[in-house]
Amino acid sequence: MVQNKSAVFLKFPKEFPIPGEHFAIQTKDLHADLKPNSVLLRNLYFSLDPYMRGRMSEAKSYIPHFQLNQPMNGNGVAEVIESKNPAFPKGALVSGMTGWEQYSVMPEGFVSQLRLLPENARTSKKIPLSAYVGVLGMPGFTAYSSLKIIGQPKAGETIFVSAAAGAVGQLVGQMAKKLGLRVVGSAGSDDKVDYLLKELKFDAAFNYKKNGTILENLRHVAPEGVDIYYENVGGETLEAALECMNTHGRIIVCGMISQYNTTTPYGIRNLGHLVAKRITMRGFINDDFAKEWYGDFLKDVGEWLEGDEIIYKEDVDEGIDGSLDAFVGMLKGKNFGKQVVKIADL
Amino acid sequence: MVQNKSAVFLKFPKEFPIPGEHFAIQTKDLHADLKPNSVLLRNLYFSLDPYMRGRMSEAKSYIPHFQLNQPMNGNGVAEVIESKNPAFPKGALVSGMTGWEQYSVMPEGFVSQLRLLPENARTSKKIPLSAYVGVLGMPGFTAYSSLKIIGQPKAGETIFVSAAAGAVGQLVGQMAKKLGLRVVGSAGSDDKVDYLLKELKFDAAFNYKKNGTILENLRHVAPEGVDIYYENVGGETLEAALECMNTHGRIIVCGMISQYNTTTPYGIRNLGHLVAKRITMRGFINDDFAKEWYGDFLKDVGEWLEGDEIIYKEDVDEGIDGSLDAFVGMLKGKNFGKQVVKIADL
Repeated sequence: MVQNKSAVFLKFPKEFPIPGEHFAIQTKDLHADLKPNSVLLRNLYFSLDPYMRGRMSEAKSYIPHFQLNQPMNGNGVAEVIESKNPAFPKGALVSGMTGWEQYSVMPEGFVSQLRLLPENARTSKKIPLSAYVGVLGMPGFTAYSSLKIIGQPKAGETIFVSAAAGAVGQLVGQMAKKLGLRVVGSAGSDDKVDYLLKELKFDAAFNYKKNGTILENLRHVAPEGVDIYYENVGGETLEAALECMNTHGRIIVCGMISQYNTTTPYGIRNLGHLVAKRITMRGFINDDFAKEWYGDFLKDVGEWLEGDEIIYKEDVDEGIDGSLDAFVGMLKGKNFGKQVVKIADL
Repeated sequence: MVQNKSAVFLKFPKEFPIPGEHFAIQTKDLHADLKPNSVLLRNLYFSLDPYMRGRMSEAKSYIPHFQLNQPMNGNGVAEVIESKNPAFPKGALVSGMTGWEQYSVMPEGFVSQLRLLPENARTSKKIPLSAYVGVLGMPGFTAYSSLKIIGQPKAGETIFVSAAAGAVGQLVGQMAKKLGLRVVGSAGSDDKVDYLLKELKFDAAFNYKKNGTILENLRHVAPEGVDIYYENVGGETLEAALECMNTHGRIIVCGMISQYNTTTPYGIRNLGHLVAKRITMRGFINDDFAKEWYGDFLKDVGEWLEGDEIIYKEDVDEGIDGSLDAFVGMLKGKNFGKQVVKIADL
């Protein structure tokens, strides 16, 4: 009998989730009694994303919260090892919503939402499998679609990206550079700031923990104001961005990670700028844009990666056992690049 | 020599402006030495609007702050009594940016932005002259254009209008009813709530000062959530609206009057809903839409008024001497209906 280790949700956290209390790795025997059109997956990579913290809350949202005492799920890359679904045969590599576990039995409704990886995925030297939960997956599409659709970027404008070395921020910054914008970013360590400046070629970047307030830092790197703010952080950073926005500015609200693990949220006091500067502030989830834009995304970003026009840093944690700590670390900003768990070798 | 009383700006207030300290009525001799293309106006009505409080601040905005020791200006209705501009002959009635004073010498650049009132304006029994600074003027167009363009209203949706008995809110609510929406509103007195329910035919309304928190009141009147929030107030009302918004909700940010006269602004703690509920929040000024929509506005709202399909309450203060107190009263919500000053009879 095969054993299956899963990350199981136990209790709604109010602040940072604690491994062993709010979630835990549990081992069970694997029962793979496949119904018609279902498949059994051997999970290879699992994506740890800030939005998953929202699924640990009972607040109403676009996606149901994790079920208590059940394995959690999220974006993964997996190999089909048993199949009763002809569209996803044994041996196929897939990406999409999988389990935070070693093996997942996927019922029909979930199978139909998986995507087959391209044929060269097994052998490509340019594109690791983990990319399909990163730059070529949900975070990549989030960056690509929202920058285009909500950001309406124009050459010569200034964009400010917070959490700029993270899963989404990296691609936003590089895309904006390609489009001729002036790109400035913030991150939480000097190493990340160096990466933004030297590797991603940002025009300016700052460590938000140093050299004065965030507002002082932002004014210094964006003396002519901000036309687009790519919001990953919330709190004081959002307040600083609102101060610096230009007329008809756009705020792309992707996330607010600084506010996910606190019982005393930061109050934003300067939303009056929305009127005075005629700002549009829009939240979204990438599903809103997938039907129309996913094909363009795969083509464009795939070509940029193949052509070495963009780079993408991943922070790969090995093995499911440490993945709970890796998740908490990501919520605290300890990851450097897109946080991924490698569950198994291909 | 004719005397001219003007409301003169003296000092930037931090909280509510105080007559005699921050602004004052001053009398001077009128010197009307007209240059080519300028006109002399005898002002009849002058509009007191919340946005004017922003012009008493040094913060960067879409419109310059009032000049110290100069008469203030704003929207008015006036009669041309001397003219060196053939497009605006002596005897013409006009609306647009005029002075907060009895007589205004309008230089060429300002004259070109005035609008001639329609020929029946002098004699209409349905439409008072004051309407051209109200329902048929800036506040009316603000309501009309922003509800259409930012609100994207659809029959069956629920709209929540704050300051619903005010200059903009009255028309927003009635337009939304015409479009088949469920309309709920808030106001600051029981009389205003009665007006919303009995005269404007709102589906529900509440006095935000009574019967529990604003959130409790809003949940009670909008049990199925809010699709469009028409924001005039800010602060606790905005926070309550964010709690109640439905997925893909729109927040039309017209103003935040609760935040204009305080040095301790209210911090909005629940902007995370923007992502979870994919909300668009957009500030604007009516100039953004005027070129494309002003003609439609005059035609539609004019017809509705002529046909008694909408009503519009004005709070008319007589004479320039009390207009400073009337302005402060409006900032405190004491007006009932659109606040106007009648400076002179036609």
